[in-house]
Amino acid sequence: MKFTKMHGLGNNYVIFNQLDDPGNVLEEDRYPALSRKVSQINFGIGSDGIILIGSSEKADFKMRIFNEDGSEAKNCGNGLRCMAKYVYDHGYAGGRNFTIETLGGIVSAEVEEGRTVDDHVSFVTVDMGKPGLQKGAIPMQGDPEARTIDELHTFGEQLLRITCISMGNPHAIIFTDDVKAAEVGRLGPLIEHSILFPERVNVGWVEVKGPREIEYRVWERGSGITMACGTGACAAVVAASLNGLVDLYQPITVHLPGGDLEIIWDEEGHVRKRGEAAYICSGELIA
Amino acid sequence: MKFTKMHGLGNNYVIFNQLDDPGNVLEEDRYPALSRKVSQINFGIGSDGIILIGSSEKADFKMRIFNEDGSEAKNCGNGLRCMAKYVYDHGYAGGRNFTIETLGGIVSAEVEEGRTVDDHVSFVTVDMGKPGLQKGAIPMQGDPEARTIDELHTFGEQLLRITCISMGNPHAIIFTDDVKAAEVGRLGPLIEHSILFPERVNVGWVEVKGPREIEYRVWERGSGITMACGTGACAAVVAASLNGLVDLYQPITVHLPGGDLEIIWDEEGHVRKRGEAAYICSGELIA
Repeated sequence: MKFTKMHGLGNNYVIFNQLDDPGNVLEEDRYPALSRKVSQINFGIGSDGIILIGSSEKADFKMRIFNEDGSEAKNCGNGLRCMAKYVYDHGYAGGRNFTIETLGGIVSAEVEEGRTVDDHVSFVTVDMGKPGLQKGAIPMQGDPEARTIDELHTFGEQLLRITCISMGNPHAIIFTDDVKAAEVGRLGPLIEHSILFPERVNVGWVEVKGPREIEYRVWERGSGITMACGTGACAAVVAASLNGLVDLYQPITVHLPGGDLEIIWDEEGHVRKRGEAAYICSGELIA
Repeated sequence: MKFTKMHGLGNNYVIFNQLDDPGNVLEEDRYPALSRKVSQINFGIGSDGIILIGSSEKADFKMRIFNEDGSEAKNCGNGLRCMAKYVYDHGYAGGRNFTIETLGGIVSAEVEEGRTVDDHVSFVTVDMGKPGLQKGAIPMQGDPEARTIDELHTFGEQLLRITCISMGNPHAIIFTDDVKAAEVGRLGPLIEHSILFPERVNVGWVEVKGPREIEYRVWERGSGITMACGTGACAAVVAASLNGLVDLYQPITVHLPGGDLEIIWDEEGHVRKRGEAAYICSGELIA
């Protein structure tokens, strides 16, 4: 099987092109095992999972992501950018704008051709849709119609102000003067498992660096501390906007441990996320 | 740069063939950075390090290994098997037996063509040389001429019987009735840093399963718990032989977490280690 390894902010995937390579099309039940084998660094390539690029009846392309444990993921912003760059660079896309069907819905992507850092890095903007702001959408205990903006809650013995946003998945955002000092590893699991959040929650700490610049660290639901959480960065910008901490309708630079994202919550209420995608290597599995 | 990723017992390397690919020959000072970049799973391929295959004036081939931190390694049994399989399969070797120059000396290797598990796994036997048995060779505190066989020592509050062997690097071996219950993570660092061992020590726990079968778990000096330590498996067989626990001059199967090795301490006093080597993928870096 022929593959290409790519990454977005260090989130890395082995990509199998099924558009015109029948050798990359397996029986449906073999993909979980393929993802586990390929992702494992000792006996496989080593990655966060695999991405299958195929054709779609509803959109220009179809993307499927399998995690390293073999489970299928709904969506992944970093993977989407890799996929978008791949289909554009390889001449499958008719133009810079196209749509991608994912398990989480259809998303639109835009590839910037002229703004590469070097030959192999492109910027891709993905429309992440509208955020969910009401407690019912998070989901979160309390009045389902009410928003959670700078609300005081107790977690363990700690009193914290949180702003909650859904970007398809739930996020609790905490503003701080020093994000590097945030006790992500201690408070993250405490808040994730709070009874406030029936489906648990991703927890983000945000330091506002300026009217168009924030720094963000995340505790991911089910994963712990990670280098980059695309939906969390979006939630951080929406939360900062709702709290009047950043300029409205403007691109906000979000610094994450894996690199930067540029996020705009536009006047139509859509969150658009712009970031890098890069190639690592291409080759063929021998097994 | 063109590469092949291979593994021996899960110990995995990205191999660059410099024999007839000038594109794989870099300025000397660039290899440490190449190894760090390639080995890193987020932004590179993901591996334990890189192997350069080149020509030698002293042996049939020259192997250089760089660890994932960019340092150059003296030798690595698992990497040597991968390298031997590669040069044999690719038609560089004149026959099944050849010599390889490493930073730790010249070693001889033998590839078994007819005994593959599938198309892509070969067995390779590497001559690991003669073990060092005296305290001076380990090195270890005490009479430099004396051997350390089943000797009682105190580590922390624990009284343990150890047998010490050098296979180019120092090993302390402890026999146990239940290797799975061995407190590798707790006792390993305690013994590694004991004042008995001026250059520290690798610590192995061995359960004798039969006259030609042992199970081995290791705490590697500087690395902690690992899936496979080739020199440690050799030391385990030598130690078991010295204690009269296994058949002399016979191939002993050693079970490690990453797979099996077959080790023989022959009548000439050489330790020969036989194990698998396998391909994972081949391809080209894009960067």
